[in-house]
Amino acid sequence: MSQPIDFYFDFSSPYAYLASAMIEPVAKKHRRQVRWHSFMLGVAFKGENTAPLTIYPKKGEYSRLDFDRTARKYGIPFNMPKDFPKITLAASRAYFSLSSQGNEKAVPFAKAVFSAYFVDGQDISDPEVITEIGAKVGLDPEELQAAFSSDEVKAAYKASVEDIVENKKIFGAPYMIVDGEPFWGADRVVQVDEWLETGGW
Amino acid sequence: MSQPIDFYFDFSSPYAYLASAMIEPVAKKHRRQVRWHSFMLGVAFKGENTAPLTIYPKKGEYSRLDFDRTARKYGIPFNMPKDFPKITLAASRAYFSLSSQGNEKAVPFAKAVFSAYFVDGQDISDPEVITEIGAKVGLDPEELQAAFSSDEVKAAYKASVEDIVENKKIFGAPYMIVDGEPFWGADRVVQVDEWLETGGW
Repeated sequence: MSQPIDFYFDFSSPYAYLASAMIEPVAKKHRRQVRWHSFMLGVAFKGENTAPLTIYPKKGEYSRLDFDRTARKYGIPFNMPKDFPKITLAASRAYFSLSSQGNEKAVPFAKAVFSAYFVDGQDISDPEVITEIGAKVGLDPEELQAAFSSDEVKAAYKASVEDIVENKKIFGAPYMIVDGEPFWGADRVVQVDEWLETGGW
Repeated sequence: MSQPIDFYFDFSSPYAYLASAMIEPVAKKHRRQVRWHSFMLGVAFKGENTAPLTIYPKKGEYSRLDFDRTARKYGIPFNMPKDFPKITLAASRAYFSLSSQGNEKAVPFAKAVFSAYFVDGQDISDPEVITEIGAKVGLDPEELQAAFSSDEVKAAYKASVEDIVENKKIFGAPYMIVDGEPFWGADRVVQVDEWLETGGW
């Protein structure tokens, strides 16, 4: 059985949202599962002394052009949220808790959160909005709220983010690991495809 | 007559070196000229409050892996210089002066400087080394020295770098502009090819 593609994301990253759509057909083509991992870019940025792309004056302007261009290229619905970036702790903890039970509930939830933010411009920093999004993909609101409010989940998620940033050395999103090989950035999904096709170079 | 591809580089950028090799077959395929523009990343970084990739602990480690991987993928000779980055004012001024007379002398010189640094590990911050490199591609040493020592060239190059960073808003290298569309990064040479192939998206 082939290893899954590990896909690291933050709900507030436009490129992670775009890559989450781009990676699916690639994984399917090569009969790989995608194992989604939520983490907090803010923690990674602090360690590296970097910041969200959009706060840089010129790089930010280019990035906004490139978000739209990437979305057009791959036919992905995308509207840059006016309120950006967002702290997405409730959504991330909820995802983390759901993912401990596998992809079945977690991945549809993650996709719904991404769409709510990057298509519909909803406030995904608001726990109530997260609960509503969960309800739309069939998750019990009370169960979901309990998941992201639980001290146990909070502590376990914090430890997981630290592991991702400190031990796996992941400094940005999206970040993909394929058979041990790391790829950073939405544009590298094309190389993930080529890597799986050729066995690497 | 089609517009040339504008290619912005800094002699100290590994990705600019890699892209300088990658862009040539793409330009040839689409019957475009490449118009090379030297600028100083240091000036761009200051305005954006960014820094060379390799100084970031985790991003730096990934970048070094990716420089090698990109070189392998495209069959480009590459040895990461031990002494990195370099201030390359003499080479950049010399290139700028040569390029005012067209590509004929300037581009072979630029390629020779890139190779001297990223293949042979020579000290391209040393004006004497630059003069020697120039001699190897048939440039008169005295003429070259006069070019990079001239106050007129210094002032004109400074103004050109300011124009590139402030007015063209170029914040990193390599940076390519194709029929008005900007592309940043060596990995985007693939998209430059697709853009020229399809007319854009």
